[in-house]
Order: sequence, then C-alpha cells, then structure tokens
Amino acid sequence: MARVTILDSTLRDGAQGEGISFSVQDKLNIVRLLDSLGVDYVEAGNPGSNPKDMEFFREAAHLTLGRAKLAAFGPTRRVGIEASRDEGLKSLLGVGTETVVIFGKSWDFHVSHVLKASLDENLAMIADSCAYAAAAGRRVIYDAEHFFDGYAANPDYAIRTLAAAIGGGASCVALCDTNGGSLPGWVGELTAAVARKFGPEVAVGIHAHNDSGLAVANSLAAVGAGASHVQGCLAGFGERCGNANLSTIIADLRLKMGVDCLQPDSLSLLSLTARSVAEIANIVFDESTPFVGRHAFAHKAGMHVDAVVKNPRSFEHVDPPLVGNERRILVSEVGGRSVILDRVKRVYPEATKDSPLVAQVLSKLKEMERFGYQFEGADASLDLLLMKVTGTYKPFFRLSKYRTIGEQPSGDAARCAQATVKIEVEGVEEVSVAEGDGPVHALDLALRKALERFYPSLSAMRLTDYKVRVLDSASAAAATVRVFIESSDTVDSWTTVGVSTDIIEASWIALVDSIEFKLIKDMDKSREASDGKEKSSHVA
Amino acid sequence: MARVTILDSTLRDGAQGEGISFSVQDKLNIVRLLDSLGVDYVEAGNPGSNPKDMEFFREAAHLTLGRAKLAAFGPTRRVGIEASRDEGLKSLLGVGTETVVIFGKSWDFHVSHVLKASLDENLAMIADSCAYAAAAGRRVIYDAEHFFDGYAANPDYAIRTLAAAIGGGASCVALCDTNGGSLPGWVGELTAAVARKFGPEVAVGIHAHNDSGLAVANSLAAVGAGASHVQGCLAGFGERCGNANLSTIIADLRLKMGVDCLQPDSLSLLSLTARSVAEIANIVFDESTPFVGRHAFAHKAGMHVDAVVKNPRSFEHVDPPLVGNERRILVSEVGGRSVILDRVKRVYPEATKDSPLVAQVLSKLKEMERFGYQFEGADASLDLLLMKVTGTYKPFFRLSKYRTIGEQPSGDAARCAQATVKIEVEGVEEVSVAEGDGPVHALDLALRKALERFYPSLSAMRLTDYKVRVLDSASAAAATVRVFIESSDTVDSWTTVGVSTDIIEASWIALVDSIEFKLIKDMDKSREASDGKEKSSHVA
Repeated sequence: MARVTILDSTLRDGAQGEGISFSVQDKLNIVRLLDSLGVDYVEAGNPGSNPKDMEFFREAAHLTLGRAKLAAFGPTRRVGIEASRDEGLKSLLGVGTETVVIFGKSWDFHVSHVLKASLDENLAMIADSCAYAAAAGRRVIYDAEHFFDGYAANPDYAIRTLAAAIGGGASCVALCDTNGGSLPGWVGELTAAVARKFGPEVAVGIHAHNDSGLAVANSLAAVGAGASHVQGCLAGFGERCGNANLSTIIADLRLKMGVDCLQPDSLSLLSLTARSVAEIANIVFDESTPFVGRHAFAHKAGMHVDAVVKNPRSFEHVDPPLVGNERRILVSEVGGRSVILDRVKRVYPEATKDSPLVAQVLSKLKEMERFGYQFEGADASLDLLLMKVTGTYKPFFRLSKYRTIGEQPSGDAARCAQATVKIEVEGVEEVSVAEGDGPVHALDLALRKALERFYPSLSAMRLTDYKVRVLDSASAAAATVRVFIESSDTVDSWTTVGVSTDIIEASWIALVDSIEFKLIKDMDKSREASDGKEKSSHVA
Repeated sequence: MARVTILDSTLRDGAQGEGISFSVQDKLNIVRLLDSLGVDYVEAGNPGSNPKDMEFFREAAHLTLGRAKLAAFGPTRRVGIEASRDEGLKSLLGVGTETVVIFGKSWDFHVSHVLKASLDENLAMIADSCAYAAAAGRRVIYDAEHFFDGYAANPDYAIRTLAAAIGGGASCVALCDTNGGSLPGWVGELTAAVARKFGPEVAVGIHAHNDSGLAVANSLAAVGAGASHVQGCLAGFGERCGNANLSTIIADLRLKMGVDCLQPDSLSLLSLTARSVAEIANIVFDESTPFVGRHAFAHKAGMHVDAVVKNPRSFEHVDPPLVGNERRILVSEVGGRSVILDRVKRVYPEATKDSPLVAQVLSKLKEMERFGYQFEGADASLDLLLMKVTGTYKPFFRLSKYRTIGEQPSGDAARCAQATVKIEVEGVEEVSVAEGDGPVHALDLALRKALERFYPSLSAMRLTDYKVRVLDSASAAAATVRVFIESSDTVDSWTTVGVSTDIIEASWIALVDSIEFKLIKDMDKSREASDGKEKSSHVA
C-alpha cells in the first residue's frame, strides 16, 4: 500500500482563519492531540513573524511526542540579504525544530509585483535559504507558494523554483494552490509532471485551499498522481474558505483509495480529535463535516430511516465506528412514526405504530417544533415530553415564584445578579436566594439550593454546557431564544431544551427539565436495585 | 459554450437536513428567490409523503415565475400496483407541475433487500411510472438512486434501469450518488459511459451528496464527462453532510470551466441569494462557504493583507463582485499594523505606522481579545474603542444605575421582565422604566426612553439583529457570553459587541455602543452639513 505523510497546519495556516486566536497553552494541547492521532508533522508557527510563537516553541521543547515532529515555518531570506544574516531565517532555525518548512514564490507575477525582485534573485533566495537550513542539519520541506497559478503563467520558471529548492537541499517540495482556484484535473496533471521530473528521491507534496470547494478533491487528485505528502488542517480551518480538511482527506485516503497514512488505529480517533481541536480553537464545529460531524451518519427522512434499520449499508457509505463516529436516528415530523414509536416504547412498552398515543405525541411534537423547540439532541427533554403526553409524568416540585434581579453598578463585579426562588414539595414550602455571575447562573444556584433539602442526590449533578441560539434574530432583543443545557452526574450526561422570548425563562425551562430528568433517573435506578433486573425506562 | 440546466432541491432533499423545517410561506419565499437567480427547476416537495407539500403546491400555483419550473418529486409505483392506481403517482401528478422527478432503484441490493421486489418487477416499476407521467404530458426527470454503487455491484442491471426509464419516456436521467461515497474519477467514467450510450437525445444529470467531501468535485467531473443537468441545493443543505452545494458549483462552472448556466446576470446575485435561503431556513450560514461566504474574500495574515492591497489578484482567485461578494480586511493581532493604521486614520488622519497611538491601540485590542472580544464584524465598537484610546471619545450620558427584574409567574406572559434605568446628561438626571419580553428587551426600551428626551434622533434607530455566542460553554450558566447587536436607521447599519459573564451586562455594553455610535454619526453629519464638504470620520 502506498504511504503518504501528513502535515497538519492548524496552528500556523489554520490560525489565519477568521475568529481563531490560539494561546500558547491551546497550541500545546493541540500538538498533543495531533501526536496521539499519529500525524507526521505539526507545523506549529512562524517564529519570525509572531513573538508568541517563539514562546510556544520554547515550551514545546519539553513535550514528549510519539510520531509527530514539530515544524517551524518561515519565508526565504529577504531580497539582497545573505541567508546567514537574515533575521527571519535565524528565528526559523533558532527555535530548534528538526524539520523546517520554508516557503517561497513560484509565480513570476508575485516575484515582480509583490516581492519586487528579479526572477533570478528569487531563485537564489530559494536555493540559499534551503541550503542554509540543510547545512544546519534540518530536514527541509519547501512550500512552493502559488505553484499552480505560477505554472499556468510561466511553466518553465515555476519548475526552476522547485529545482532551486531541491538543489539547495529540500527533501520535499509541496505544491501550493495558495489562492484555492485550481481544478482537480490541473492539479493532478502538474503533480504527475513534477513527480516524474523530481521523484522518487524528492517527495512531492500538496497544499490545497478550499476557495473553489475543491481542496479535498485536489489533494486526492495529487495523491493519485504521485504526491506522497499532504498538508492541511484537521478541522479545515484556515484563511478565507479554509485549508484542505485533513479529517476528510485521511478518511478518503484510507477507506476509499487504500492509501496508508497515520497509524493503523488512528482512524477511530478521527472524530474525537477533530472535534477537540475545534473546541480548543473555540470554533463551533461544523456538524455536517464528512465522516466526523454529528450529522454525518444522522438519518431523518422516514424512508431512509426504515432502510438503515433494515441494513445500514443502504444509506451509509462507510461504517461510522471506523472513523470514531456513530449512527443517529433523528426525531422530527419528517422522521415518521417508527422513530417516535421507538421512543414511546421506552415509556409505554406496549405501544404499537397505530396507538393513538403515537399520533398524540407526533401532534404535540409538531406543535412544539412550530414554537421553536428542537428535540434533535435534547433527548432528556423529549423523554419528559413523552411522559407528559402519556400521563406518566409527576412533577417533583411546584414553582410558586421566581424573581431575578440584575443591577449595575452591583458593588460586586463577579456576582452582579440575584435570584430568589419559592417552591413547594408535597405541601412544604421553601424559599431560597443566591447570587450569580448573571441571572441564569443565580437562578440555577437558587433552585438547587431550595431543592437539595428534599432531593440530596442533586448535589452530584452539574451543568456542563450551556448554549443559546437566537431563532428570529431579526426581532433583535425581543427575539425567541432556544437554550440547550447539558448536565451530568458521575454516571450519565443528558441534554434539555427550553424556548422563550425571555432568555431567563428559556433557561429556566431547560434547567427544570434537567433536574427532573436526574430525579426520575435516580428513582428508576433505585427501583431497579430493589426490583432486581427490571430495565430502566428513562435513561437515554 | 456548453449549457447545463440547474435543479435546486433545497425544498425537498435540503429539507431532510438536520435542524431544517420549512413552513409553506418559507417555501414560497425560497421559490421566488431561486427564480430570480435563474434556476431552471425548483424541486419543491414530495406530495405523496408530506401533506404540507400538497398545501404548498396549491399556493405555488398562483406564483408568477420567470425561468424556473416547479417540479414535484416522488417514487416509482409500488410493487404489484398498477401505475394508474398508485396513490403516490396520483399525488405526484395531482399537484399539476409541468415537470415531475420520479426516483427509482438502480442498485440490485436495494431492490432485493429494501424494496423486496424481483429485479424485473423493479424495471417494470420504473418504466410504468415514467410512462404514466409522460402519457399525462409531463416532462419526466428520472433520478437513478444509488446509480454509482449499483453500477459497481451490477453494471448491466444499473444500465437497464436507465434504459427502462428512458423507454418509459424520461427525457433526463440523473445519476445519483445517494450515499455520497463515490470518487470523482469513478463518477466521471460512468457519466461518460452513460452519455455515450443514451445521449444526446436524453440529458444526463448528476445528483451528488457530500459524505466524502467531494460533492462539488463529483458534479464538476460529471459535467466534464458530458452531463448537462446538475442537481443540488443552493446553500448545500441536505441530509447527513448535505447535497452538492450549488452556489459553489455554479461559480465553478461559470468562472472556472466556461460552462453556461442560469442567466448572464445571475452570478452577481449568488451571495445574497444563498444567504437569504439560509436565513429563511433559519440555519446559521457557513461564512467559509466558497465564493459566497463573508470569509471567502477576507484577509487576515499581515503579509496577505499587504499583497492584496498592492494587487488583489495576488491572493484572490476570482474578483469578489463577480459573485456578489466583497473583499474584507480583518482587524486582529495577526492583521498587522497597516490594518490598524487604516482604522486609526479615520479618527486621527495624521497617524503613521510608527505612531505610538497605533501601538497603544494594538495593545488595547489584544487585551480585549484575550477577554473574549472580537472586533471582526463589529466595526462600530472598534471605532468607539479607537476614540477611547486616542482620547477623542466623550460620553453622551452617564449611567447611575440599571436594574432588571424577571419574574414568574409574571401575570403578563408577553412582558415578563421589567427594567429601570437612571442616567445623567450634563447634570440632568432621568429615570425611566419599561417592560419587555425579557430583561434585555426591557433594558433596551428603558434606556432609549430615558435618552430620547435629550437625543430625539434616537427614535429613528432600531435594533435589527441580536446574536449570542457562549464562549466557554463548559462553564455552563457562569460562562462568558459575547453579544453582537446590529442596528440601523434610515441611512446606515452598524454592529457592536459586548462581552461579560452576565448576558444582560454583555447586551448592555453592545447596546450603549450602538446608541453612542448613532449619536456620533449624527453629530458628524450635522457638522458636515454646516462645514460644507468635510468628510465624516466615523461612518464605516
């Protein structure tokens, strides 16, 4: 099987993406993740242009890595400066990585109009810089910026820039579609030509951007034409439309093209690693990302759901666990009765597809969806809704009143909100008050304070995630908001949803669902324990 | 130039996407948008499976459309039922569209294991159904479900399913990569074979899904191999990883491959139309979408910014206005001094790259970014920040105190929150109170009520968008939130940002920025009017 090395540039080219800014600690965490995945090179910064990157490389020197090698990235020497006196190259080598990536210009237009150098001086800059790094004992990857556009404009010159890098000592030349405008046919054709001319002693690489929606296809086309090195970003981050998405490319290479990369067990880490990188970057993960997104194996259309239940191969191109993902059957009005039935059966095991109950639940569901509810992903609220419709729900407390007060200036910057809650449990009233970082936080604290007297197990539960989605943002401050709350205790985690034009009320609804779900779950468990092996009907 | 017809399936296959649910009114609005763009066919629903779609087609019959033709979608007749007695086909023709799309099975595995019919019966189902629709005078597009997987398993049978459709009267056969698992080489090869066998009397189409990140590439490969009909969804919606993104395909076909589609002036409507469709679907638009996203022509890296300013061609593969988009230069710590300088100059025209002011602004900016601020997209807050750093800012009012109260039960479901605001303008105090749909809404109303006495022009301003992003959602209810508020008056629109662990405080900060920006803008305008032609320094 052919083998391809993978260079991840999330920390360098990915950091150019809009809304992305990594701390040194973020970068160290991402290096560890990429190393566990089995990436060959982690291009981790441009020490010459960003002082924060210098600090990162100092810290990174203490990391113990498995397969991954850190690579520093920087430009060729400046016009008219000797390589050994060039500050940029000194910084590049100064951080002490075994591998360096040096980029230079392959497009004559860029040389003349942006660099404002002669074409020969540019060739010397490339050769000198690679030679300087190679003489210092570094493995040199040369990034041929704008190679595909450059070749279109002046093929002979573009090839000479590669020859200059290789003559200088580069062991790998990565052909860059810097502006992302090339088509797969063109990329494949040129990669084949370069591989014929310089391979196999020199590795040919591909570095694609997604401006034409073709970064994955261009990368695969290059590998098909002889490239043995692929650059990109695991979660597809990067300037403009992003760098080539490595999670997609890795899965396609391994599962579709039979090309070896990373390590044998890497593939099953793909989903978790891609998601974790996005989380560290504080970017909302695109759930429709091929292979690794939550939607990638989610089935909603009634017919598809039926077929997938019969045989997954009917609507799945690969088996989700191969890439560390899972199949999901979505609940929605399009989903059809079989999905709802499956849910209703957890609460009412004797229900059938034609039970009036199933129709009742469907109609309630549609009504709630019209109002802005969405139960895809909020299984705990859905289970509670089913219990309410089927009449098996019994409230754990009654709310008499809540009140939140937010004040500025508050005298206490960290606790600017106050909430009072009055509840009743089986005829016993309880009033509590709490201060919080905002009204929702204060309300959460006050409600739990009031309830713990009656339900001590609540002390083991905590909120682990809180998401707000403004539904009709054009209504501005009076808009409807949907709040998702994820909670967990030592055993399970569950998600609930609330909708209102008042963000506090929406949060309250999700909060109450979350607490009730926890209490029902505990009740079931203790009943189970006393009944022997009776199965829980609530835990998702 | 070759010509390709475009079928948009946002309202049918796109509606299968997770989190998407269209009302009849939504669908009518999207049909109008797609027609203005110049799409050839709008596949708008599956009347046999969804009663809501019946209602839609009744309403849609009153639309006056330009180029676009509505198409209804449905399956072949059921096993063992005569076409003329099949309820599904009756519904399909019953909605009265001139064009119908009939889908059937091309993969023997699906016929045997999902449909549970004989291979011959399936061929008869396809032929009968197309013939029934054709006899009723409809133009029939046949969607060959799973064609590429089917051909891999049993090439002869897959081709016979197409022949059955064509024999029945289909004038176009769309080859579907239903599971999204095919590679461009395979798609191109089979499309060429089908086009050779059945073309040019019969149009060959492509219907791709993005499960391997290759839907765009597969669609282009098919067109390159002779397909003259492309199906997809304008904004890439659809089950799992989505259908082929038509906005990308249309731009690639026209700008990269010289293939004609839509109408001559359609391309400049592409960005606005794709965004509007997402807005109606209530889906957060993916801003890194090629060609049409806000990030598609946004430049952040210092070096790129410098080069793009010198010559846009250096880092742009196409000219943004061609697709109705625009270039953006982003402000961030990576963006470098030239971007900041550009901004500072609006307030302090005499500043240079080395002014201490520029360094001061950069350092303040980094501090705010660390705290969670993001000024990309919040130009008005950025301008105010610059004025604060450079000392040209003068507050329009002083806040003495605000207080918000949220209460349940509130007695008035629609106005459950109350806010009081006490402010001072040049020594004069004003207290106001307002009720709102939530604390932020109440606060907005109360503040404006208090200020309008001093600044009557505020009555012309309104909030047009309100967005909340939870930054460290793992801190749950105590998380830091970032609020963006978009405001407009009759002339301009502007965006401001606020960050806090308290959503009310974050909203307050953005709200105050928004009001102050409006007042400064008005002041500048009236000064301009009295000064003659002096240029405004604040309006973005």
